[in-house]
Amino acid sequence: MKKINILFFLVLIVFMSCSSEKFDKESIQDTILSIIKQQQTAWNNHDIQGFMADYWHSEDLTFQSGGQRLYGWDKLLKRYQTSYAGEKMGELTFSDTQIKVLSPEYVYALGRWKVEQDNNTKSGVFTIIFKLFPSGWKIIHDHSS
Amino acid sequence: MKKINILFFLVLIVFMSCSSEKFDKESIQDTILSIIKQQQTAWNNHDIQGFMADYWHSEDLTFQSGGQRLYGWDKLLKRYQTSYAGEKMGELTFSDTQIKVLSPEYVYALGRWKVEQDNNTKSGVFTIIFKLFPSGWKIIHDHSS
Repeated sequence: MKKINILFFLVLIVFMSCSSEKFDKESIQDTILSIIKQQQTAWNNHDIQGFMADYWHSEDLTFQSGGQRLYGWDKLLKRYQTSYAGEKMGELTFSDTQIKVLSPEYVYALGRWKVEQDNNTKSGVFTIIFKLFPSGWKIIHDHSS
Repeated sequence: MKKINILFFLVLIVFMSCSSEKFDKESIQDTILSIIKQQQTAWNNHDIQGFMADYWHSEDLTFQSGGQRLYGWDKLLKRYQTSYAGEKMGELTFSDTQIKVLSPEYVYALGRWKVEQDNNTKSGVFTIIFKLFPSGWKIIHDHSS
């Protein structure tokens, strides 16, 4: 009887340790929110490399906007450098952000973006998907419109 | 020694049975692709209820488009009924679809959409997120632009 109990608890511990429900969603939400805030700060310091640091540095990064899909970190950097050169970066504000934790490895976030330039304001909505890599959480897909 | 072996194999079996890596990604991709094709067919039969059947029937369904976010299945149905009443539904084509399986429960898909109406063609890109419910895979978030 004693041996059966030990066996039961061992199986239970292993089962609990690999259950996908035990991860801390709130802690992940806080981390993602801090990344989004940090992106906003980098943009507003006109630090495009800092802004891009949270994107997956891969050819497989995807970005959809303006009816087009773009692949790869380098092309996305080029797009931002072309569309928002120098003073055009203006002041970025993210708002109305919602963070949805799907698993210990994947999260998506919805929100609104606004860029206030000297004589123009652009705004829209975004959907971004994050993956947890050994180097931390990175955006693997961004749809901004 | 024999008891330790039995114990070892029991723990191993439980561990393997709850590993998140054992799910069949290709089978999930096939299922999602068939849902997307079925949506296209329903739209082209001007069957808006059939088209909407693959959306999560919840107030928490989110839809982002044209710089706006909309909540809930009922509001999304109303939006489609208003924007694409009758003949305006035209002919829908989804293309360039990529399906990314994140876990046994979550998938996202990217692609292009095109609606050819009598005197007009609208087109853009989409990012949709699916969740597996007891009733099957449903779209929980759609960003179309």
